[in-house]
Amino acid sequence: MWKITEEMIEAIAIGAGILGTGGGGNPYIGMLRLRSLLQEGRTVQVVSPAELPEDALVVICAGIGAPTVGVEKLEQGHEGLWALRGLEREMGRKVTAVISAEIGGANSIEPMVVSALAGLPVVDGDGMGRAFPEVQMVTFFIYGVSPVPGILCDEKGNQVVIRHALDAVSVERFARAVTIQMGCTATMASSPMTAVEVQGTAVPYTLSLVRAVGEAVLAARRTHTDPIEAILEVTGGTVLFRGKIVDVERRTVTGFARGEVNIEGLDADRGQQLNVRFQNENLIAVRDGQVIACVPDLICIVDRETGEPVTTELLRFGQRVAVLGIPCASLLRQPEALPVVGPAAFGYDDVTYQPLPGEMPLRPRYGS
Amino acid sequence: MWKITEEMIEAIAIGAGILGTGGGGNPYIGMLRLRSLLQEGRTVQVVSPAELPEDALVVICAGIGAPTVGVEKLEQGHEGLWALRGLEREMGRKVTAVISAEIGGANSIEPMVVSALAGLPVVDGDGMGRAFPEVQMVTFFIYGVSPVPGILCDEKGNQVVIRHALDAVSVERFARAVTIQMGCTATMASSPMTAVEVQGTAVPYTLSLVRAVGEAVLAARRTHTDPIEAILEVTGGTVLFRGKIVDVERRTVTGFARGEVNIEGLDADRGQQLNVRFQNENLIAVRDGQVIACVPDLICIVDRETGEPVTTELLRFGQRVAVLGIPCASLLRQPEALPVVGPAAFGYDDVTYQPLPGEMPLRPRYGS
Repeated sequence: MWKITEEMIEAIAIGAGILGTGGGGNPYIGMLRLRSLLQEGRTVQVVSPAELPEDALVVICAGIGAPTVGVEKLEQGHEGLWALRGLEREMGRKVTAVISAEIGGANSIEPMVVSALAGLPVVDGDGMGRAFPEVQMVTFFIYGVSPVPGILCDEKGNQVVIRHALDAVSVERFARAVTIQMGCTATMASSPMTAVEVQGTAVPYTLSLVRAVGEAVLAARRTHTDPIEAILEVTGGTVLFRGKIVDVERRTVTGFARGEVNIEGLDADRGQQLNVRFQNENLIAVRDGQVIACVPDLICIVDRETGEPVTTELLRFGQRVAVLGIPCASLLRQPEALPVVGPAAFGYDDVTYQPLPGEMPLRPRYGS
Repeated sequence: MWKITEEMIEAIAIGAGILGTGGGGNPYIGMLRLRSLLQEGRTVQVVSPAELPEDALVVICAGIGAPTVGVEKLEQGHEGLWALRGLEREMGRKVTAVISAEIGGANSIEPMVVSALAGLPVVDGDGMGRAFPEVQMVTFFIYGVSPVPGILCDEKGNQVVIRHALDAVSVERFARAVTIQMGCTATMASSPMTAVEVQGTAVPYTLSLVRAVGEAVLAARRTHTDPIEAILEVTGGTVLFRGKIVDVERRTVTGFARGEVNIEGLDADRGQQLNVRFQNENLIAVRDGQVIACVPDLICIVDRETGEPVTTELLRFGQRVAVLGIPCASLLRQPEALPVVGPAAFGYDDVTYQPLPGEMPLRPRYGS
C-alpha cells in the first residue's frame, strides 16, 4: 500500500504517456485535476491486487472517446464520480475500490481522480498494461469478467446505462455510439469485480511501473543522462527507430483518431523510413515494408531529447523522435488474448505477431 | 373501458396503418403477435385517460427504428415486456398502465402486446394522433413530461437505459444511436407519467379513432361501397390526389427510411404530378411546385380500390393510390408544438404550415 503524492503525479503522467503508445488520451488535463484534488487535502491510496479484502467490489473507471477531442472538450470534473455513483445505484451495492481499464495515457489518472473524490483506494494494476482503443480489449473481459453493467456520463449530466449486453464487443458498440452522441468523449464506470476476479485477470503493478518509468525519465533529465536509456532500462524495451516526422495523416472517424505517421531516419537509421499506423494507439510499425513491431507489444513515440511521450494528436512535422518497442504483459500474449488484441483484431490479417524479446517487468516496487 | 377482441385487431391495424402516414412501422407483424396472445386467453383492456386512477403510473411502449428493417428483422416477442420490467427496476415502482407513443403504424399495437403480456390496461390515446419519426415529437414531451428514464431492448437480450438526459432531443440521439447498434430496430419503454400528466398531454381517444377508421374501411369493403369515402367520413379528411406511382427513391440512412415518391395523376388529376417526401413518415406533398399539405397534418397514401394503407417501405412502381389529407390533432397545431413537429423541424424552413380544414375528431366512441 502506498499513497499518491503531488510530486509523483508528473512521473506517473510521463510513464502513463509512454505506455499509452500514442493514445489513452493525453494525461496532462487529468494530471492538473488530480493535483488540485490532492492540494485540497484529498488522498489516493494505492493497493496491490493481493491486498484487496475478500469481499472487495472493484469497478473500472475510464475515459472513452477520441483523444483528439479529449484535448479540446474539457471534462466538468465530476463525471467519474457520477459514473461510480450511477453504477452503485444500478448494482444496489457500494463500490470499495477502483481500477484502471488501461494504464496508458489519461486512463491511468481517471481512476485516481475518482479515488480522490470518493475516498476509495485505487488498485495497482489495469486491464492492458498499455492502452488500446476498444472496450473489449481488456484482460478482465478476455479472461471472463462480465463487462456489464456499465454507465456512461458526460459533462452535461447525460447518463446512459448498459444493463445487459451479449458480450464485450456489444458493450464497445453501444458505448462508442453513445460516446459519439455525448460529443466524442465520455466517462465510463463498469464491470464490478470481486477480489479474486481482479487477482486473476488484471495486469498487476502497472501503476507502479508507470511511476517507475516516469521517475527514471525525470531523474535522467535532472542528471543530464539519456532519458531514453532510462525508459529502456525500466521497461525492458529497445529503440526501434530514430528520426524526424515528415508526414502525419490523422482523421477523427467513427469516434476514433485514425491515421499514420511517417518518420525519416536519422543517425544509424539515416536513409530509412518508418511508418507507424494508429487507431488512437500505435498499432504497427513498418520499416521498408517489414513489420518490426505490432500490437499487443508497445510502440511508443517519444521526444528524442527529453523522453517525453508524443501522443497521436500531438504528432507534427519536424519533431525529432525515438520510436521504442516495449514487450507487452504476458497476459496479452496468450491464445485467448491474441485474437482480441493482436494484429488481426485491428484488420491486419496478414501480419503474424512476432513477440518483442522479453516481457513487461511487473512486480511490486513501492509501499510497505 | 372496453376490451380488444380478435375481431377488432384487423380494423385497428388498418386504421393505424392509415394514421401512420406511411410510417410507424408496418402493423402486420404486431397484429399477428397480438392475435396469438388473445388466442392464448390473454386480455387487453382499454381505458380512457379520464378513467385512470389518480395514483396511476403510465409508461410509453414503442418500437423504434427504420420500418424498412422492421419488416425483415423480426422481434423475439418479449422485448416490450423486458423493457417494461427494466423500467420498473429503474424506477423501483410498478407500472399500472401503458400508452402508445404514436397511434400510427406498429406502435398502435406494441403497447397492446405489452398489455396482454403484463396484464395491464392500455390507455385510449397516444402522443401524436399519427406517426412521427423522432422521439421528441410527442405531445407528452412537448407539454412538459420528462422523457427519462427510458430503456431500449433488442431481441438478443441487450438492454440500455437512458437514465438522465438534457432534453427529449438528447434522448432521441442516444436512443437512435443505440437502436442502430441493436440492428436498426429496438423496443423502448420510457417516461413514467401520472394520470394528471396523461390527461394533460396525451392526444385522447386515438385508439378508438383507428378502430373506427378500420371498421369503416372493412364495412365499406363488405358492402361494396367506397372505402376511401369511409375513411374521409370518420377522419374529416379530403382526397389530395389520385394517381399511379411512377418513381420511388428510398434509402435507409442514419437509422431512418428516407426518400420520396412521385405519383402521376389519374382521373381528375390526370396530367399533374404529386411528389411526397418522407422520413419514415410522409412529411410534405407538393403538386406542381405547390405545397398542398405538410406536417403536422397527415398525408396518407392508400390503395385506390381497397383503402389499404401503403407504408413507405411497400411503395412500388405502378400502384394505383389515393393520397389523403387528414387534419391533425389540435394539440399539434399550438405554438409550443409547431417548432417540434411542423415543416421546419424536418428541414423545410421555407414552408409555412397551412392547416388543412377541420381538426382530428377525438371523442369517446366505445365502451361503457
